[in-house]
Amino acid sequence: MTHAILLVNCEDRTGLVATLSQFVHEHGGNIIDADQHTEELDGRFYMRLVWELDGFALGRDEIADALNAIADKYQMEHQLMFDDQEERIAVFCSKASHCVHDLIMRQEMGELSGRIQVIISNHDNLKSLAESFSIPYVHIPVTADDKASAEAKQQAVLEEYKIDTVVLARYMQILSAEFVERWQHHIINIHHSFLPAFAGARPYHQAKERGVKIIGATAHYVTSALDEGPIIEQNVCRVSHRDTVDDMIRKGRDLERQVLAHALRMHLQKRVLPISNRTIVFA
Amino acid sequence: MTHAILLVNCEDRTGLVATLSQFVHEHGGNIIDADQHTEELDGRFYMRLVWELDGFALGRDEIADALNAIADKYQMEHQLMFDDQEERIAVFCSKASHCVHDLIMRQEMGELSGRIQVIISNHDNLKSLAESFSIPYVHIPVTADDKASAEAKQQAVLEEYKIDTVVLARYMQILSAEFVERWQHHIINIHHSFLPAFAGARPYHQAKERGVKIIGATAHYVTSALDEGPIIEQNVCRVSHRDTVDDMIRKGRDLERQVLAHALRMHLQKRVLPISNRTIVFA
Amino acid sequence: MTHAILLVNCEDRTGLVATLSQFVHEHGGNIIDADQHTEELDGRFYMRLVWELDGFALGRDEIADALNAIADKYQMEHQLMFDDQEERIAVFCSKASHCVHDLIMRQEMGELSGRIQVIISNHDNLKSLAESFSIPYVHIPVTADDKASAEAKQQAVLEEYKIDTVVLARYMQILSAEFVERWQHHIINIHHSFLPAFAGARPYHQAKERGVKIIGATAHYVTSALDEGPIIEQNVCRVSHRDTVDDMIRKGRDLERQVLAHALRMHLQKRVLPISNRTIVFA
Amino acid sequence: MTHAILLVNCEDRTGLVATLSQFVHEHGGNIIDADQHTEELDGRFYMRLVWELDGFALGRDEIADALNAIADKYQMEHQLMFDDQEERIAVFCSKASHCVHDLIMRQEMGELSGRIQVIISNHDNLKSLAESFSIPYVHIPVTADDKASAEAKQQAVLEEYKIDTVVLARYMQILSAEFVERWQHHIINIHHSFLPAFAGARPYHQAKERGVKIIGATAHYVTSALDEGPIIEQNVCRVSHRDTVDDMIRKGRDLERQVLAHALRMHLQKRVLPISNRTIVFA
Repeated sequence: MTHAILLVNCEDRTGLVATLSQFVHEHGGNIIDADQHTEELDGRFYMRLVWELDGFALGRDEIADALNAIADKYQMEHQLMFDDQEERIAVFCSKASHCVHDLIMRQEMGELSGRIQVIISNHDNLKSLAESFSIPYVHIPVTADDKASAEAKQQAVLEEYKIDTVVLARYMQILSAEFVERWQHHIINIHHSFLPAFAGARPYHQAKERGVKIIGATAHYVTSALDEGPIIEQNVCRVSHRDTVDDMIRKGRDLERQVLAHALRMHLQKRVLPISNRTIVFA
Repeated sequence: MTHAILLVNCEDRTGLVATLSQFVHEHGGNIIDADQHTEELDGRFYMRLVWELDGFALGRDEIADALNAIADKYQMEHQLMFDDQEERIAVFCSKASHCVHDLIMRQEMGELSGRIQVIISNHDNLKSLAESFSIPYVHIPVTADDKASAEAKQQAVLEEYKIDTVVLARYMQILSAEFVERWQHHIINIHHSFLPAFAGARPYHQAKERGVKIIGATAHYVTSALDEGPIIEQNVCRVSHRDTVDDMIRKGRDLERQVLAHALRMHLQKRVLPISNRTIVFA
Repeated sequence: MTHAILLVNCEDRTGLVATLSQFVHEHGGNIIDADQHTEELDGRFYMRLVWELDGFALGRDEIADALNAIADKYQMEHQLMFDDQEERIAVFCSKASHCVHDLIMRQEMGELSGRIQVIISNHDNLKSLAESFSIPYVHIPVTADDKASAEAKQQAVLEEYKIDTVVLARYMQILSAEFVERWQHHIINIHHSFLPAFAGARPYHQAKERGVKIIGATAHYVTSALDEGPIIEQNVCRVSHRDTVDDMIRKGRDLERQVLAHALRMHLQKRVLPISNRTIVFA
Repeated sequence: MTHAILLVNCEDRTGLVATLSQFVHEHGGNIIDADQHTEELDGRFYMRLVWELDGFALGRDEIADALNAIADKYQMEHQLMFDDQEERIAVFCSKASHCVHDLIMRQEMGELSGRIQVIISNHDNLKSLAESFSIPYVHIPVTADDKASAEAKQQAVLEEYKIDTVVLARYMQILSAEFVERWQHHIINIHHSFLPAFAGARPYHQAKERGVKIIGATAHYVTSALDEGPIIEQNVCRVSHRDTVDDMIRKGRDLERQVLAHALRMHLQKRVLPISNRTIVFA
């Protein structure tokens, strides 16, 4: 059964829930999930609404048109999606395999509500992995002085495969501000996080030196500020003095896999609303 | 600012969200929180709706009347509450202090959206604790053959203090089926294990013998089936062979305090909907 | 650098740590990890001792002989292992891929201190997965009336590949008491629930019906008592009414992968000492 | 039954475990807990050793002398303690009650292996709380220009009560470098922690603005570097957009209570070895 999913974001006022739910009702739709939030920080109204498309009086384009009219009236930002539309995903990676392989494994098990169309890497070591699961693999080397041309090639591949969402699965290159802006809220990155935070290289070594008792990972939308951007998901695990740096890296890999997969899942199900530098996740 | 909180439970059909939100809107109410769920297990519609009472066109009794009319039409079960009504709580305890003391501490910090009116115990060892926080303490001894008379006295105290919710804070006596039924969905118990594992006596000893790696605690509404009843909240922590039974009991106390306080908080905010032997918690 | 790992288990008495560490010292060994536990349940002495083999005065057989002499004197049960010996692993599976695939992925990343020599399944759907990672795959169908002959074939494969440890990676057949006994403490199973709760079939459905707020997975050594056996590792995650049975199964898969991999890791590093129906894990 | 607890820290070499355990054995002591760690970061040897004092051939002073001789020979740093010696604790607080009250509650339940001798505060609002549990309360106001004289008074109180360990239970004043140095590794502080970290004021507001999904708390020994110092314990909990800043503060209070109590417990049981800016916790 197919569902329409609507994400809405506007200034709060009375009647918004009534207006949106009335719209669904008057065309014969049955709401099966409604989650609304009024935010104390900005006084705004946020809502995610899911209804069954079966028997709905309007066609998909008509829904879009009708919603545009409502959105204009209430100055809403909104996104509309149908859950039989398979999101098209590109995975960017470098040498590390754990996040890429994990996403492939989840795709094989039918866990992703989307499909990895292509893997793009600045290295070629994961080519055979991709091929054994029949996923196209494009090797685009990146060097300090050909960044622009590499990004042009990456962009071309994304267009060729009609990509909706880019996942940086431990991709170790920094994307340009232009690239990031073009794909705003459509690139998800995973990185390690710690209490306290460690800027700079070799964070697990720093964490070991500092004797932290918990390590973490954070998935976020990519913005031009490095390792910043709206946080979608975080998770942590315990470490002790018995954990070597290698143990921490291994535990970190597990965290990165889980957190990235969860964030992607939330994103693909249109559960994530980015607002300024944070997100609302209708989990 | 005062809010109305509405909990609804009925057979699913189209138009329910629209009907309820339209009702709020047409009387000038602003919805600030709406959370709706359609359950796959039973195909039913569950919703929690919160709106600002300020400027609402109907008085409290009028709201109740109007909602009764809607509820009749759609065969809804519903509960209506206003969050300036302080729930009146009775705490039942025996000798163990940790849950009682924790609840008092939270009350002192303003964490409870309710007020402990009276503490009832079959022992008198916590009397001075209660008194140092100016909470009435009623000592009602219970013996095997005077259970009925003890419960009659307890009931009288609950009526005297106009109690809404009873919290069993490690109360070690079993309540009669009649008592439990009279207070259905208004008695919260904390069980010192991760139900349904290790129901019954000495769960920490059972857990130690079994070598489990995680222990837990469960808060639930009390039903006449011992250690059963709809689960409101659970939490766990890790243990190892290094933990003695006493260590597990100590860790368990921390869990019990957290889980009971959280469950009570959810209950007082009318976030918990019991359905058959489970709950929906609009967290 | 190679290490000797010694696991010891005997009745407690004075001088055991001194005797064992003196043995290592007098032959020029450097202890790099010592973890000792005296258990309140049975008053017994448990110890794990790791020392550098480099420069140790005794050869491997001589160590074994010398330890046997000590063990006789103190009525110790003990296991001796050298960490350059790669444990030989067989993975049993049925149709579900997630645990098998996860173990393969970890092997590819160098996380296992052992090597999967063969995958044995009563189905053939994971053959191509195994082959794409160059792991032999033996399809041994099992039907109700040929169980004994299937087990004979399985045993032959285990012998052919000189297997040390068998991992049941969601293998859905029940092994005979004879088979289990022959491989006592060398078969690790992953059970898709938080044992001892919800033993038996369809635990996620049971959990959904019961409205639990936390689900878990348990890895344990297999004994002839179904869903029993010494627990090696458990982990949990939160669920709510919003999780369908399918969501719980998906979350459960993640748990099962993590818990099984962790248990196997502990086992391969000789960190697990099974005692009656529990374990000590020197983590 | 009384135990001796020995913490040792020295350069690694062969024979250390043998020497220490032989020392215990030759005087008739029974080791009931031995935990040893060789650290990859610095190549040093760390050990915690616990033995029964009952029947031990040496008196307490003789043990100390004998250990000093061993320590000299191997250039060990070491601490010796007997677990019938009740550590004497001073709690510093300001206006917030949660950590102080929690520690009192744990003391009442017999969870602390130490005793709160005195509460020192720059405010007087918690005086009646302290008094209702018969704990001396000393009000020492602190203003920007009388810091030195306030610290002199605090120091006098600590000496009067023969304090071993100072707990900063949300004490909102910064201690001078001199004070901190005098009490090196004997002052434990609790503060909130986040991923990413937020320097400066109102961290929960910052965390809300940043949309973090996890908040945490860290207990550490106080050094002259603000909010730095060797970490003893950390813990975290989940938050979402539904949590207001007040909710986050409330959840943070729970974390702070747990983490501080756990860190203090580890410290009192001589399980914590501070090394440069980290700790080893023999948990």
